Amino acid sequence: MATIALSPAAPGARIVSLGHFLPATVLTSEEVASRLTVDAEWIVSRTGIRERRIADKGETVADLATAAARRALEKVPDGTVDTVLVATSTPESTMPSVATRVAGRLGLPEPSAFDVNAACAGFCYALATADSLIRTGASRGVLLVGADKASAFLDWADRDTAVLFADGAGAAVVQPAEQPGVGPVLWGSAGERGELITIDATDGVLRQNGPAVYRWASGLGPMARRICDRAGIAPDQLAAFIPHQANLRIVNALATHLKLREENYVATDVVDTGNTMAATIPLALSRMSEKRSVADDEGVLLFGFGAGLSYAGQIITLNGLARA
Amino acid sequence: MATIALSPAAPGARIVSLGHFLPATVLTSEEVASRLTVDAEWIVSRTGIRERRIADKGETVADLATAAARRALEKVPDGTVDTVLVATSTPESTMPSVATRVAGRLGLPEPSAFDVNAACAGFCYALATADSLIRTGASRGVLLVGADKASAFLDWADRDTAVLFADGAGAAVVQPAEQPGVGPVLWGSAGERGELITIDATDGVLRQNGPAVYRWASGLGPMARRICDRAGIAPDQLAAFIPHQANLRIVNALATHLKLREENYVATDVVDTGNTMAATIPLALSRMSEKRSVADDEGVLLFGFGAGLSYAGQIITLNGLARA
Repeated sequence: MATIALSPAAPGARIVSLGHFLPATVLTSEEVASRLTVDAEWIVSRTGIRERRIADKGETVADLATAAARRALEKVPDGTVDTVLVATSTPESTMPSVATRVAGRLGLPEPSAFDVNAACAGFCYALATADSLIRTGASRGVLLVGADKASAFLDWADRDTAVLFADGAGAAVVQPAEQPGVGPVLWGSAGERGELITIDATDGVLRQNGPAVYRWASGLGPMARRICDRAGIAPDQLAAFIPHQANLRIVNALATHLKLREENYVATDVVDTGNTMAATIPLALSRMSEKRSVADDEGVLLFGFGAGLSYAGQIITLNGLARA
Repeated sequence: MATIALSPAAPGARIVSLGHFLPATVLTSEEVASRLTVDAEWIVSRTGIRERRIADKGETVADLATAAARRALEKVPDGTVDTVLVATSTPESTMPSVATRVAGRLGLPEPSAFDVNAACAGFCYALATADSLIRTGASRGVLLVGADKASAFLDWADRDTAVLFADGAGAAVVQPAEQPGVGPVLWGSAGERGELITIDATDGVLRQNGPAVYRWASGLGPMARRICDRAGIAPDQLAAFIPHQANLRIVNALATHLKLREENYVATDVVDTGNTMAATIPLALSRMSEKRSVADDEGVLLFGFGAGLSYAGQIITLNGLARA
């Protein structure tokens, strides 16, 4: 007779530290435009993107992720982390996982480690996973990284993608908490429309049907509102809104739909980072935490969406966030 | 003031349905040997593998996963699943995720969907994830698939890999349960040894340091024993042991270390399936459930290990398993 004993659980989880990394090379919209039959103003007016960072040829997703992770780990005691989760859809190779590469480089002592792929919704998917692993006691502390190197998959002559995507990484450390700092996730997908954004299995090139994806993403406002409903927090009570940074016009459409307070912070990092895929949300969150403080008990709405078509979001609070 | 409301949780999770799929083409060890400078007896004596299945060129990981998933879903009511998890490290492409491809083909209504990559430990990693998602209320029912198409990454002239790896998929449906049917996970990694099994980022070829991996894996007995400790169930109380099917000699070394009862079932599917990576454990579990019944309250030890070097395991029971 097998009666399974379960590990002790935590009432909630919260983000206790953040960090991010952007590669050194800046690529302006002027430079991107010069490779296309458009001018920089066309790019800026349609996407809001003025510049983005591009990793060196030899710089891998694991490199970007490790650099962001180091910055988040610096602010917490050694031994905090026993699980490493990396959200990515552009790994240098699928074996070993990027998470084990990162864990090995950081010298973490034998953590559980795995990659999560939900494309540009990956960070919010992985945060929901981390929250659940901590609340059930499967993990005691999760290093959660969103990292992508889109540039390795771009056709610089394709204006539907070359103007948008870029490279970067953002990291968070998630720990058990008496008072939940990560709200319930709202997540889903529309797999039957998965052909709208793909990395081609044959030539390895990232392609998207720009107009269709734009229409879908800019119409996700009601979904963002449902995330708030699920957490029991009205949009006009939020302190900040950090949607996936795909395009400034999509960010603005979502923010407008939510009828946020005037003092609410809306992430617009896409302007100088481009779309760094699974990295945009932790990157924007980390940058916000450096330049502006959100009160401990104020809600921050995260909302990721992208290929798949996948989406996920949750409200978090930043109570107890470590500072450098 | 944001007070986050969390979803209701379940006390436990259990596997309620299983299914598997193997591609039609059988490749015998004689045929593999004929491409190498070894004979079939050399392969059988070192690996235990007599034959394996190889997918057609156009047959993708999503195809394998969808076929296995259909068989698991046939046995449960429509509407059971709201999350799709696919454990794989050989996706046809990383965008969109295999999970959204599978969800789209199955016509599931807007499930959350993502891929998990922990190489050959992937199914046990994903099962731990599914268990946590259900226990916290993030998911109400998870379709969990382990699927890999190793053949797409093999060098048939490399005897360290060509003799071992193969293609397949296994699926499980996981649901909330009053009495836990999934035990606590023991998981970890040794990322600093990640170079022992890789898919080369440059040429896309799967390579492994066979002797070093063999030594590591066949020495994991104490780790398997710790999984039992964590669940509070002694190895000699188990009804079945389903380790990752990498090599029959590794299976036997682990089973011997555990000092299992004589009537304990030990999976040896590797003999006719080869190493199907993240698929081996759900495949062996599904095949066992078709040929032999395990009493509802008897423990089944799952233990996955592979590239990364990653490992994960848990004890499950099969109480309430649906039959075709």
